Amino acid sequence: MAIRIGIVGGTGYTGVELLRLLAGHPEADVVAITSRGDAGTPVADMFPSLRGRYSLSFTAPADADLARCDVVFFATPHGVAMAQARELVGAGVKIIDLAADFRLKDVAEFERWYKLPHTCPDLLAESVYGLPEMNREAIRKARIVGNPGCYPTTVQLGFLPLVEAGVVDTEHLIADSKSGVSGAGRKAEVGLLFAEAADNFRAYNVGGHRHHPEMVNGLADHSATPVKLVFTPHLVPMVRGILSTLYARLTRPDTDVQALFERRYANEPFVDVMPAGAMPDTRSVRGSNVLRLAVHRRNDSDLVTVIAVMDNMTKGAAGQAVQNMNLMLGLPETTGLAGLPLVP
Amino acid sequence: MAIRIGIVGGTGYTGVELLRLLAGHPEADVVAITSRGDAGTPVADMFPSLRGRYSLSFTAPADADLARCDVVFFATPHGVAMAQARELVGAGVKIIDLAADFRLKDVAEFERWYKLPHTCPDLLAESVYGLPEMNREAIRKARIVGNPGCYPTTVQLGFLPLVEAGVVDTEHLIADSKSGVSGAGRKAEVGLLFAEAADNFRAYNVGGHRHHPEMVNGLADHSATPVKLVFTPHLVPMVRGILSTLYARLTRPDTDVQALFERRYANEPFVDVMPAGAMPDTRSVRGSNVLRLAVHRRNDSDLVTVIAVMDNMTKGAAGQAVQNMNLMLGLPETTGLAGLPLVP
Amino acid sequence: MAIRIGIVGGTGYTGVELLRLLAGHPEADVVAITSRGDAGTPVADMFPSLRGRYSLSFTAPADADLARCDVVFFATPHGVAMAQARELVGAGVKIIDLAADFRLKDVAEFERWYKLPHTCPDLLAESVYGLPEMNREAIRKARIVGNPGCYPTTVQLGFLPLVEAGVVDTEHLIADSKSGVSGAGRKAEVGLLFAEAADNFRAYNVGGHRHHPEMVNGLADHSATPVKLVFTPHLVPMVRGILSTLYARLTRPDTDVQALFERRYANEPFVDVMPAGAMPDTRSVRGSNVLRLAVHRRNDSDLVTVIAVMDNMTKGAAGQAVQNMNLMLGLPETTGLAGLPLVP
Amino acid sequence: MAIRIGIVGGTGYTGVELLRLLAGHPEADVVAITSRGDAGTPVADMFPSLRGRYSLSFTAPADADLARCDVVFFATPHGVAMAQARELVGAGVKIIDLAADFRLKDVAEFERWYKLPHTCPDLLAESVYGLPEMNREAIRKARIVGNPGCYPTTVQLGFLPLVEAGVVDTEHLIADSKSGVSGAGRKAEVGLLFAEAADNFRAYNVGGHRHHPEMVNGLADHSATPVKLVFTPHLVPMVRGILSTLYARLTRPDTDVQALFERRYANEPFVDVMPAGAMPDTRSVRGSNVLRLAVHRRNDSDLVTVIAVMDNMTKGAAGQAVQNMNLMLGLPETTGLAGLPLVP
Repeated sequence: MAIRIGIVGGTGYTGVELLRLLAGHPEADVVAITSRGDAGTPVADMFPSLRGRYSLSFTAPADADLARCDVVFFATPHGVAMAQARELVGAGVKIIDLAADFRLKDVAEFERWYKLPHTCPDLLAESVYGLPEMNREAIRKARIVGNPGCYPTTVQLGFLPLVEAGVVDTEHLIADSKSGVSGAGRKAEVGLLFAEAADNFRAYNVGGHRHHPEMVNGLADHSATPVKLVFTPHLVPMVRGILSTLYARLTRPDTDVQALFERRYANEPFVDVMPAGAMPDTRSVRGSNVLRLAVHRRNDSDLVTVIAVMDNMTKGAAGQAVQNMNLMLGLPETTGLAGLPLVP
Repeated sequence: MAIRIGIVGGTGYTGVELLRLLAGHPEADVVAITSRGDAGTPVADMFPSLRGRYSLSFTAPADADLARCDVVFFATPHGVAMAQARELVGAGVKIIDLAADFRLKDVAEFERWYKLPHTCPDLLAESVYGLPEMNREAIRKARIVGNPGCYPTTVQLGFLPLVEAGVVDTEHLIADSKSGVSGAGRKAEVGLLFAEAADNFRAYNVGGHRHHPEMVNGLADHSATPVKLVFTPHLVPMVRGILSTLYARLTRPDTDVQALFERRYANEPFVDVMPAGAMPDTRSVRGSNVLRLAVHRRNDSDLVTVIAVMDNMTKGAAGQAVQNMNLMLGLPETTGLAGLPLVP
Repeated sequence: MAIRIGIVGGTGYTGVELLRLLAGHPEADVVAITSRGDAGTPVADMFPSLRGRYSLSFTAPADADLARCDVVFFATPHGVAMAQARELVGAGVKIIDLAADFRLKDVAEFERWYKLPHTCPDLLAESVYGLPEMNREAIRKARIVGNPGCYPTTVQLGFLPLVEAGVVDTEHLIADSKSGVSGAGRKAEVGLLFAEAADNFRAYNVGGHRHHPEMVNGLADHSATPVKLVFTPHLVPMVRGILSTLYARLTRPDTDVQALFERRYANEPFVDVMPAGAMPDTRSVRGSNVLRLAVHRRNDSDLVTVIAVMDNMTKGAAGQAVQNMNLMLGLPETTGLAGLPLVP
Repeated sequence: MAIRIGIVGGTGYTGVELLRLLAGHPEADVVAITSRGDAGTPVADMFPSLRGRYSLSFTAPADADLARCDVVFFATPHGVAMAQARELVGAGVKIIDLAADFRLKDVAEFERWYKLPHTCPDLLAESVYGLPEMNREAIRKARIVGNPGCYPTTVQLGFLPLVEAGVVDTEHLIADSKSGVSGAGRKAEVGLLFAEAADNFRAYNVGGHRHHPEMVNGLADHSATPVKLVFTPHLVPMVRGILSTLYARLTRPDTDVQALFERRYANEPFVDVMPAGAMPDTRSVRGSNVLRLAVHRRNDSDLVTVIAVMDNMTKGAAGQAVQNMNLMLGLPETTGLAGLPLVP
């Protein structure tokens, strides 16, 4: 029996990635997709890559009967999901928000970073942060999942084994992250133009990024000591992919960090710990739901370096959302997520 | 029951693309993959994108028991397939050559362009040119298929309806083609370096390209009049994709070319005729087996322009090879080829 | 004695390219640069590449004393130059418009393509089309120069020798052009985003492009027979550069086309005719004012192919504008334009 | 009176960049350029960007009369300069080596990293490390200059003010560097192919990079405390440019780091300290000899972050070499190096 799926706000990159993945999901049936500005347009007119596979058109939000869906994904700007969550949850619909409405448990912190009042603190309280490798059991039972940000997925999964084991100085973590341009979304901004971003490299938001509290909170929940993190995001002239280079100082330098990571992720279908000394590249996960990482020690240093790569559109957004859906509905976690990366 | 598959020469781009596609093919079982230089290396060490899905290692050619396969793909330089074809065909193995050994029926022409003597003209004579949209029935019965070149697939399928219908001046066809750099293969050549090809655009082989006779022959077979073609290939700073802009002068200017194309390809699962005036882009087929095209007339001109896009790795090489395999083995033609393009 | 220069609308790509070139021009002194939206901002804040070389800030258009300049460049949207031309010309200022206000002599044609009424047809009539290789003497005496579009520069200079000599069928010219993304300007449009244009290739405006009448008019002025042209522009995932592949059918197939081109451009400082069979690439002119071309004949064809490359920002816009300024002011034509291309 | 210049090994990227810069240097006259493999080929045939400006051809090394030059640049693999240095220095020629032969003062260290015996330790001892911002006076008097590596230029100039002032923990420096692909040279290697490096991002040589000892030595020379550095280089899909993100822990957190940097580089023509909080991008220095940097403090951290950008071909190689030549010959340091960056 097919799962009835609704997508709110399907004209961005996470929208089209959801449609790509759900087309290959044997149980999924996308019954509605909304867009304020493009109601009436067939999705395959906006994204010709979908021609022949989706006959669906975008619907005005008011006209979509989302209450009859089993699951609704919000691939919208921040603030949309919380406005519709109460009604949908009341109708028994499960919600997965790919924006930030359900990522930060602290309402004041949310409002400080996102400049929006939070309109349903009670639902926020019951919602679950959708990083399966941290919160799998809670996700299985959740009615509302806040799908993690792209950077936070790499930074948390990269530091998690070290922080959980209590073997690093958690007050001096450094995350030097590099993202492809699709991470900024399908927004007409000068800084994201090809002629600005191509053949160019830069850091941005060094003074403060919305993903920072999300990372710190997630790690702090699994740390016995306070967590402080310096985070530097950079823009790479490529479409998809994030690579985070993570630095931490070992407080117990005799730790076998390779074994620590291998043990921690032994049963994770979507985290691949490479052999010691390997150097993962972003294309090795392009279009797939895998986060791939490697751990490095240097001879004369007590610093450990973790290099983690991930496709920001897939494990960093739509793929992780489908993984969460599978968990919430009791399906095998990997259903519809078996596609191999596109190389070259 | 699984199909036993061998791949000769799996370290190039068509090799890894075959492995990607066959991993998603429900009947396929890759039992051997050979490499002269990398015998013993696990394929997933060379291509980490395959980690967790292929435990296979490269085998020395002499050690691979290819005769026990059902199908063998040659993803090799020109000349390798013809050296092994007789023995394998004798053992009942079906052969699909992704190089040029079985593309040109005229031995002298082959030898002129590829600077190699052809060692099995009799097998060449019985082999079938593997463009399903032209030769489907013959492919079903073939023991040996010569998989088309990437440019020729776009140029032939783009001109075919016009040539078959006899509505254009076939002696003045122009194909202005643009290809991503992966089309040149995984060869260490200065001209293919990132620092040479990026942020740059150029034509090449304007004086003569090996794909030229292949295109002309294929079209001539379906034309009542002689075929002459000017072909200009260009190198685009992108990884995958070909776009061919095709120009022909209508000898019957009242032809409804849009209807002609729609009729010709109505039942083709992998050719998508867009509405009149559409402008296909290469990413709309990235990683998929679809060739997408659009036909244009300009007000004041008797020239018709066809714009065809295709992924050179998929419909232009490994995907078309799998399509041919499906036909040769009596499987549904689209098996394992349903993956949607990766956008963005 | 320094030339006093004003730039109207300096926040786009042609603006910053003018500033780059004029910084190396020994006679130039940029005294004013205007911007409606960024008045008060130092130009070096918007373009840090100019730090240390320009202390100038953007001025509101109303506050700039342009009438005291010797030359004013308009690096603005279409329609701005004609609104200010009469007053400036009256004050003795020479005008070079990098937009389209003075490119098309036929007012009705201008209004059809640019959807603007032309407000000074008399000035349009006296203005000169600023392609020095066609109109050098007229430019020297002009008060107003309409700087050519980027595509038209390549297409006209590529076809000119053939058309002037009357050796091709001028009613079936084909220009298959490919441009880097900077040609579209510094405009926040979704289609120009990195995540849309990178690793992608497409044609656009196939149904009609504003540069089409400009090319046809320029060539018709130098042709004894009517000119018809099919023009197909494409978007290349690179920042700068245009390559036009031009096809024409020889009516006099015995023409020595190589000699024809070499003779025509023998004294042109900014047109480089390569040896027969050469294949120019766009990076070979990156950042320079040179248009480089090569001519090709194929054995079995009466078609001649010309491949022309140019930097759309330099010879295609700001460099050509400086070349025109030099001519208008009686300076050596190459002053300030000697910088070599940036390779790689 | 012109300076007679020889270039040994001019077929790589630093060679063509030297030729570009020297063409704009008013005192420079390139009289010889050698190549083992391409003797007899005009340089403008290999690099068409030089057409019309260089009539010189490559000479076999044995045939070049380098002893009559004033300066010889070695744009060669490691080991070539030291083989020819003694003879040239004996003839009164000044030498600038763009490879590593004269970068590391410790012979054993050189031999460990470069796997070559050092053949002239006495000349190594007298040679000067050519980073003008550190060693200007010594360079003026030098006969042999070892031109710095690209990464070391950014890392040393980025850390130098902090290390000199003794305000950071010099035993836990971190340099997370990102380089365009041209930094690897014009070598036919699979990993540098467009189809490997484009739309991809990766770290490399994490276990140890030849530039590591060079950086550590340079900083240690200016530090009162021992220097330890973790260095992680990454490959960015762009042609030119390096961005280094540098992390250091302040031992004196009350330091005004912005003032420290501004003071240190106040008189440096090629180091630009941006305002606090700025975010330099690599294109802002593309093709120019400027190193541009910005310093960042984050509220809750005692870490200081420095972001430094540079063109690896110019300030990172050929431009710095010309700057050194100017110093060695008593010319104004900025001669021939005034070209503005190419943006966009």
